[in-house]
Amino acid sequence: MPLVLDLFGVFFFGVSGSLLAARRGFDIVGSLLLAGLTGIGGGIIRDVILGQTPTAFANPFYFIPPVLAALLVFFLAPGVQRMMRPLLVFDAAGLALFCITGTIKALESGMNPFASALLGVTSAVGGGLLRDVVANKTPELFNPRDIYAVPAMLGAGLIAGFWGMGLTGGAWQLAVAGVVFLLRLLALTFHWHVPRAVGPWHRDATLN
Amino acid sequence: MPLVLDLFGVFFFGVSGSLLAARRGFDIVGSLLLAGLTGIGGGIIRDVILGQTPTAFANPFYFIPPVLAALLVFFLAPGVQRMMRPLLVFDAAGLALFCITGTIKALESGMNPFASALLGVTSAVGGGLLRDVVANKTPELFNPRDIYAVPAMLGAGLIAGFWGMGLTGGAWQLAVAGVVFLLRLLALTFHWHVPRAVGPWHRDATLN
Amino acid sequence: MPLVLDLFGVFFFGVSGSLLAARRGFDIVGSLLLAGLTGIGGGIIRDVILGQTPTAFANPFYFIPPVLAALLVFFLAPGVQRMMRPLLVFDAAGLALFCITGTIKALESGMNPFASALLGVTSAVGGGLLRDVVANKTPELFNPRDIYAVPAMLGAGLIAGFWGMGLTGGAWQLAVAGVVFLLRLLALTFHWHVPRAVGPWHRDATLN
Repeated sequence: MPLVLDLFGVFFFGVSGSLLAARRGFDIVGSLLLAGLTGIGGGIIRDVILGQTPTAFANPFYFIPPVLAALLVFFLAPGVQRMMRPLLVFDAAGLALFCITGTIKALESGMNPFASALLGVTSAVGGGLLRDVVANKTPELFNPRDIYAVPAMLGAGLIAGFWGMGLTGGAWQLAVAGVVFLLRLLALTFHWHVPRAVGPWHRDATLN
Repeated sequence: MPLVLDLFGVFFFGVSGSLLAARRGFDIVGSLLLAGLTGIGGGIIRDVILGQTPTAFANPFYFIPPVLAALLVFFLAPGVQRMMRPLLVFDAAGLALFCITGTIKALESGMNPFASALLGVTSAVGGGLLRDVVANKTPELFNPRDIYAVPAMLGAGLIAGFWGMGLTGGAWQLAVAGVVFLLRLLALTFHWHVPRAVGPWHRDATLN
Repeated sequence: MPLVLDLFGVFFFGVSGSLLAARRGFDIVGSLLLAGLTGIGGGIIRDVILGQTPTAFANPFYFIPPVLAALLVFFLAPGVQRMMRPLLVFDAAGLALFCITGTIKALESGMNPFASALLGVTSAVGGGLLRDVVANKTPELFNPRDIYAVPAMLGAGLIAGFWGMGLTGGAWQLAVAGVVFLLRLLALTFHWHVPRAVGPWHRDATLN
C-alpha cells in the first residue's frame, strides 16, 4: 500500500515535469527524463544523504510512472492543462505523502528530529526544485505568491515532534498528512502567502 | 586500458566544458572547473548513488584531462571550434563508453537491470547536464533538434539485457559500444530527432 | 571551538543566500531555504562524496545560523547591504576555514592528497555555487573580474602538501588559513583577476 501511494506521488510530480518539458519545447525523451527527475529526484537526494540505495533504484516499478506521465502529456497536453486544478490537488497529496514518509524514513535511520524534518521537506520539495533548475527556470519553490514549503515544513516538524513523544502510530501520521494536504489546498484557494525576504519598511531600498 | 579509455572520455567531455566557459566569458579557472565537472560529474553521480567512493577521487590521474582541456581551449580556442566536427566524434565515443561502463559498474554492484541501465545513462549524460546547469543554460540534453540520450538509453538497455542472458563477455560490450557510437554519429549526420513532448495535433494549444 | 567557527562560516555564507533571495524578490521562507543551502551545501557535497552523514544533519545547531541570516536580512536588509564590505571579510574567513577543514576531513578519511584538496575547494565554493544555480543566476564563482576559487585552491593544496610531509599541526593549518584569508582580501581590494578562458590573441574569434 505505501508503495502504491508512493508511485502515485511519483506520477503526479512526473506530470508536472512533462508539462514543463512541453512548455519549453523539449522532445518526448526530454519529457520522460524531466518526469523521472521530478518524480524520484527528491527521494534520491534523501536516500543519498541517508547513505542508502535510493528506493527508486531498488524497485523497477518506479520506472512506470514517468513513462505514463510523458505519454499522458504527449497525447493529452491541453486536456492535462485544463485539469491543472485537479492535478494540483494530487500534487498536494504527493507533497503531504513525501514529507511524511521522508521524515519517518530519516527518523528510522537514526537521524535527529531536526535533521529528519529537514530531510522530509527535502524529499517533498526536492524533485520540483531539480525540475526547475534543470529546465533553467527560477524554481516555483521560491514563488512569493504561493506557499509550498510551509505546509511540508509544518508536517515534517509535527511528525518529528510526535516521534519524540512516542506517538509513532499510523493514525497520527495519517492525521498529519491530512493537515498538510488541507493547508496546501487552502493556500492554493485563498492565495495564502508569507512576507517577502525583506521587511516592507525596506522595500524601496535598492539591493544589488 | 579501460582507465586510459575513461581518461580520454573525461578529456573530450572536458573540452566541451572549457569551450562553454570560453563562450560565456569565464576565466581560465572557471574553464578548468567546468571542464572537470563535465568530465567527471556523470561518474560522481553514478558512484554516489551506488554508495561508492567516486572513481575520480580514488585516482589522481583524473586531474590531468581537465587541465589539458582548459589549456587546449586557452591556446587554441578557434582551432578547437573549427574541430567541433571531429570533437563530436570523440564526444560520441565518450558517450558510448560511459553508458556501457556505467551500466556494467551498476550491474556488478548488484543493482537490478532497469536501475543499472538508468545509472549507465546518467553516467553518460550527467556531466553534460551539470555543465549546462552550472553555466545557467538550458541543457543540450533537452535540445529537440538532436538525439543524445536515445543511443545511450539503447546501449545501456542492451548491456543490461545481455547481462540478464548471461552474455557478459567483452565482445558483446564492444559490439554495443560500437552500435551506440554509430547511432550517435548517424543522428548527428542526418539530424535525426524524436517527436516533441506534445503530440503535433496539440501543437497550437497554449500551454502555460 | 571548531564547531563555533564552522557555525560562523555557515552564518556568513547564509547571509549571502538571504541577500540574493531579497534581490530576486523571494519570500522569507525562500530566504531561509537559500540561506541554509548556501551555508551547509558545500559541506553536504563533501560528506556525501566521502560516504559520511553530512555534519549539518548530525548536529541541530546548524539550523540556527540560516534562521539568523534570514531574520537579519528581513529586518536590516539595506544596512546589511551597506555592510557588504565587512561581510566580504567574513565570507573570506568562511572560505579560508571551509577549504582547510574540508581538506583535512578528506585526508583523515583516507583520500589521496589531490582528491582531498579538490574536496576542500568543493566545500569552500560549493555552497555559493548551489546558491546561484538554484536562484537561476550565472555563478559568482565564474565571475572573471574576481578570483574566488584560487585562494581556496592554493590553501587546500598547501594543506594536502603539508600533510604529505607530516606537518599536521594546528599551527600549520592556522598559517594556511591566514594566507587564504589574506589573499582573498588582497584580491578584493586590488581587483586581482586571472586570464579569460580564451587566450587574448583569440579574443576576437567568434565562438558559438
